[in-house]
Amino acid sequence: MAYDLLKGKKGIIFGALDEKSIAWKTAQKCYAEGAEIVLTNAPVALRMGAINQLAAECGNAPVIGADVTNLDDLKNLIEKSMEHFGGKIDFILHSVGMGLNVRKGKHYTEMNYEWNQKTFDISSMSLHKILKTAWELDALNEHASVVALTYIAAQRVFPDYNEMADAKALLESVTRMFGYYYGEKKKVRVNTISQSPTPTTAGSGVKGFDSFINYAEKMSPLGNAPAEACADYVAVMFSDLTKYVTMQNLFHDGGFSFTGVTPKVLEAMGGA
Amino acid sequence: MAYDLLKGKKGIIFGALDEKSIAWKTAQKCYAEGAEIVLTNAPVALRMGAINQLAAECGNAPVIGADVTNLDDLKNLIEKSMEHFGGKIDFILHSVGMGLNVRKGKHYTEMNYEWNQKTFDISSMSLHKILKTAWELDALNEHASVVALTYIAAQRVFPDYNEMADAKALLESVTRMFGYYYGEKKKVRVNTISQSPTPTTAGSGVKGFDSFINYAEKMSPLGNAPAEACADYVAVMFSDLTKYVTMQNLFHDGGFSFTGVTPKVLEAMGGA
Amino acid sequence: MAYDLLKGKKGIIFGALDEKSIAWKTAQKCYAEGAEIVLTNAPVALRMGAINQLAAECGNAPVIGADVTNLDDLKNLIEKSMEHFGGKIDFILHSVGMGLNVRKGKHYTEMNYEWNQKTFDISSMSLHKILKTAWELDALNEHASVVALTYIAAQRVFPDYNEMADAKALLESVTRMFGYYYGEKKKVRVNTISQSPTPTTAGSGVKGFDSFINYAEKMSPLGNAPAEACADYVAVMFSDLTKYVTMQNLFHDGGFSFTGVTPKVLEAMGGA
Amino acid sequence: MAYDLLKGKKGIIFGALDEKSIAWKTAQKCYAEGAEIVLTNAPVALRMGAINQLAAECGNAPVIGADVTNLDDLKNLIEKSMEHFGGKIDFILHSVGMGLNVRKGKHYTEMNYEWNQKTFDISSMSLHKILKTAWELDALNEHASVVALTYIAAQRVFPDYNEMADAKALLESVTRMFGYYYGEKKKVRVNTISQSPTPTTAGSGVKGFDSFINYAEKMSPLGNAPAEACADYVAVMFSDLTKYVTMQNLFHDGGFSFTGVTPKVLEAMGGA
Repeated sequence: MAYDLLKGKKGIIFGALDEKSIAWKTAQKCYAEGAEIVLTNAPVALRMGAINQLAAECGNAPVIGADVTNLDDLKNLIEKSMEHFGGKIDFILHSVGMGLNVRKGKHYTEMNYEWNQKTFDISSMSLHKILKTAWELDALNEHASVVALTYIAAQRVFPDYNEMADAKALLESVTRMFGYYYGEKKKVRVNTISQSPTPTTAGSGVKGFDSFINYAEKMSPLGNAPAEACADYVAVMFSDLTKYVTMQNLFHDGGFSFTGVTPKVLEAMGGA
Repeated sequence: MAYDLLKGKKGIIFGALDEKSIAWKTAQKCYAEGAEIVLTNAPVALRMGAINQLAAECGNAPVIGADVTNLDDLKNLIEKSMEHFGGKIDFILHSVGMGLNVRKGKHYTEMNYEWNQKTFDISSMSLHKILKTAWELDALNEHASVVALTYIAAQRVFPDYNEMADAKALLESVTRMFGYYYGEKKKVRVNTISQSPTPTTAGSGVKGFDSFINYAEKMSPLGNAPAEACADYVAVMFSDLTKYVTMQNLFHDGGFSFTGVTPKVLEAMGGA
Repeated sequence: MAYDLLKGKKGIIFGALDEKSIAWKTAQKCYAEGAEIVLTNAPVALRMGAINQLAAECGNAPVIGADVTNLDDLKNLIEKSMEHFGGKIDFILHSVGMGLNVRKGKHYTEMNYEWNQKTFDISSMSLHKILKTAWELDALNEHASVVALTYIAAQRVFPDYNEMADAKALLESVTRMFGYYYGEKKKVRVNTISQSPTPTTAGSGVKGFDSFINYAEKMSPLGNAPAEACADYVAVMFSDLTKYVTMQNLFHDGGFSFTGVTPKVLEAMGGA
Repeated sequence: MAYDLLKGKKGIIFGALDEKSIAWKTAQKCYAEGAEIVLTNAPVALRMGAINQLAAECGNAPVIGADVTNLDDLKNLIEKSMEHFGGKIDFILHSVGMGLNVRKGKHYTEMNYEWNQKTFDISSMSLHKILKTAWELDALNEHASVVALTYIAAQRVFPDYNEMADAKALLESVTRMFGYYYGEKKKVRVNTISQSPTPTTAGSGVKGFDSFINYAEKMSPLGNAPAEACADYVAVMFSDLTKYVTMQNLFHDGGFSFTGVTPKVLEAMGGA
C-alpha cells in the first residue's frame, strides 16, 4: 500500500546489495511512494549486478558507483545525481558498514588497528564525508532528511558485533554533530534508525547470528522488525510529516530496546 | 497536504481543549488523513463548548465526556466509541495532564501530597486506566497504536515544570510497561512523543513560560516544533508505516534533546 | 577493611529489615567507616525485633519507628535524630519499597489503583516527604548526601516487577527534581543506586525471582553485585570523595546495564 | 584528607601535563591514598619537564614516556611498570585527548580526515591499545580498575567541541566493549568519568571556553566540579569499594547532565 508520501522528492540510496538488504527495500518503498531515486554502492558491489534489476524496477534509476571513503567519488555521485534530478536532493539513506576485523575473524581484543581505521572510515566517517560533500555543493534542499542505519550495539555490548559496535557509536555521534550544523544551516535533519537484527547478507556474516536473532525475537514484544517495515519507517522519516525530528536515534525493533527480559527468554534458559 | 495515511482507521482523541491544543490539531490531521474519530475530554472542559466546532469539522465526530480518572466513564467512552465505529479501535491519543500543585502555586519543595496524587491520577495513571479498560473490553485492533504526549522534563530538571516532571516520568514508565504487555498480547504499540514547549492554553499556565520558550527556540537547531508538526508526527505513529515502533519515547523538538548548548544561547547570556 | 571514610558523619538508615537487607549491610558499613547512625523502619517491621541486634552492633544506634508516608512520623524521626546527634545530618539511605499489587498477586494489567497509590506513596513519594521534612527543619548539613536504592526496571521492562517499575521510575524522577532544588539551596546531593537483583527478603517476594537472578548473573560480566558491595558503594556516595555527583542514577550491577547479550545466555537458550 | 583508600595498590597515570591537569591531581590523590604510581605522557609533553616535579612529590615515581598510539611504547611502559612495582597493576587513568582539527582551527564541517584519524587514534583507540597491551601481557590484577576521562559532548552537541565529541563517543564505546571482555576474563572494570568543563591547559584550547564554562557553572546546581574533586572521584573508582561498577559513564558535573535549564541561565539571557 502506498500513499504518495514522497511525491516529487528526490533521493540517493546507499547500500542496496541484493533483495534482502534494507536499502533495497527502502529504494522500492521510496519509489512506490512517488520519489525519484539514484542508487549507489561500492564499485565492487555493483559488479555483482543485482542492483540493475532494482534500478529497472525503480523507474530506471541511475546506478552510480562510489567508494564512500573517497571524496572525489562522492562529489561525482552527488553532482551526477543533481544533474539527473535537475535540482537538489531531498533525502539520503546511508546503509553502509563493513567490519574488517569482523570479516577476517579477529577478536575484539586482538584488533588490527589499520583494519579498524578502514572499518570506521567505511562505516562511520563515510556519513561525515557524504554530508560534507553535500554541504560544499549545497546539494540538499531545505528540510532534506538523512537517515543512517545503526544497531543497538552502539549502546550495549553484543560481543560478536565486535568493532562494529564502536563504528555504530561513532556513526551516531556524527549524526548528532552534523545534524546540529546542517539543521542550523538549512533545516536539514539527520537521524539514525536502530533496526532489529535482520537476516541480510551483511548481517548474516556476524558469528552466531542465528542464535542471536532467535534471542532478539524472544526478547521483543512485537518480534523482530522485518526489513520491509524498516523501509516503511525510513520513508516516513524522509517525508514532510517528520520535519522537526533530528539528531535522534530511533529504535525500530519491536520493543527490544526497552525490554529487560521476557518469560520466553527465561523459559528457553530452563527457568520458570 | 494529506495522503490518506489513516484511511479506514478509527480512533479516540483525548484532550482537545481549544484550537491551540495539540490534540485539536491531531484530530484535524487524523480526519484529513482519512480516519474516523471520537473526541473526548473532561466534562468541565466540554462545557467550554469549543470542541463542538472541532467535531463539526471532523465529519460530525461524536463528543463523549469522560473523567480520565473514572473507570466507569472510560468504559462508557470506549463502548460508545466501538458502537459508533461499528468495530474496534485503531488508535488513541492521550494528551492529558494537569498539575494541581502547579496550578495552585505550590513550589515543588512545598508539595501538597493529596493534590499530587490527583496530578498523577489525571496525568499519568489515566493512561493505565484507558489501556486497562481497552484491554478488558478487547477494544483495540491488532497493531493498534497509542500515543501519549510527554515532555523532556521527565529526563532533565526544568524547575518550573514542578511535579509535572514526575508525572511525565511516570507516564513514560506506564507507556513502556503497558506497551510490553499489550505488544505481547495483541501487537498493540504504545509510545510517547516528547514535544517542544508549545504555546497551548495548558502550556502557558506554567510560570516563566515565555522566557523558557525563547530559550528552547535558541537551543533547537530547527527551532521549536510547532503544534501542527506534532500532529503530523502523531498521525505517522498511528499509521501502518510504524508498526514495529513501541515502548519508545520519541523526541519531536527540533533537536533540543541532543543539543548541549548553542552560540545563540551563549550570546544571549552575554558570552562570546 | 575500613578507612574511616565517614568519620564524624551522622546519618539515618531507612529500611534495615534483617541481615539480608542492603540497608542492614549499609548500616554496618557506615558504622565501620566511623559514622554515627540512627536506624528507622516502619513500626510493623520494627516489631520483628531483628533491628535491635543491628543497633547493638552499631554503637547502640537509636531505633526510631516511622511510617514513611506520615509527615508527623518523619518530623519526629528527624528531630529526634538531630537531638541524638547534637547537630545536623550528613547522609540518608532510602531503602524502602513495597508493591501492594505485587504482594497481592494482581497482574500489572489488572491493577488495583488504590493499592497502587499506596505503592507510590511508600516506595517513591516517601523520598519526597523525607526531603521536604529535612528541608523544612533545615536538618541537612552542606554537602549532605542522600541515596535511594532503585532498580533497572525503571528503564526497561522486567515483567514480573509489575508496578514497582513505575514506582522506581517515579523515585528516580523525584531524585533528580529534589536533587536540583537541594543542590541549589545547600549543595546537598541526591542520587539513586540501581543495584543488581539481590536475594533479600523483599526481593525474594517477586515472582520467578530465582530464574531471574540466574539470568542476571549470566548477563553480567562481573556477575551480580552482592549486597555487601552495594553497601560499600553507598558508603562511597556518602563520603566527601563524591561531593559533585548529584541527580544521577548509578548502576551497581556488574555491567548488566550495558550488556545486550552474553554467550552464557545464548548457550543456556540452546544456541551456539 | 586521606584514608589509605589505595594502600598497596599500584597504577599508571596517563596525561599529567602540568599542575592544572586532572591527571596531575589524580596522581597526587592516589599517592596520598597510599598507592604507588608510574607517570607517563607523550615524549613531547615530557620534555616540558613539569612532570618531574610531580614525580618527586609522589615518592619518586618513575616517569616513562609513551606515545599512546604506539604499541611498542605501550608494551615497554607496561613491562617497565610491572618491573618497577614487582607485580601486576591495579589501576590505570586514561586522561588523553587531542583534536588535531580543533587545534588547527578546522570547523567540524570542513574536517580534514587524516587529522581526524589521528585524533581518534590518540583520544579513543589509545584506550583500546593500552588495554590490549595489558591483556596480552596479563598485566592487570583481578578487580583492577581502569578509568578514562570523557565529556558530555559524547551525548549532546556542544558545537565548539568539534571532532572531540565523536572521539569521546568512541572512547565511551571502547570502554563498554573492552570492559565487557576484561570483566568476563579477569573481573577488571572499565569506566569513564564525564567531568565538568575544567580550566586545564588542554581544555582552555577550545574556542569560546570562558563563556562556555560560565554557562556550565550557571547550569549546574552544585556548580562546575573542580579538578581536585574529580581526582577524588577517580580514586574512589580505583578503590575496592566500587568493585562491581563497570562499563559505566559516570557524570561528575555538579548535576549539569540532568538539568534542563536554570533560572540563572534564563536570567542571564534577559528572561524572567
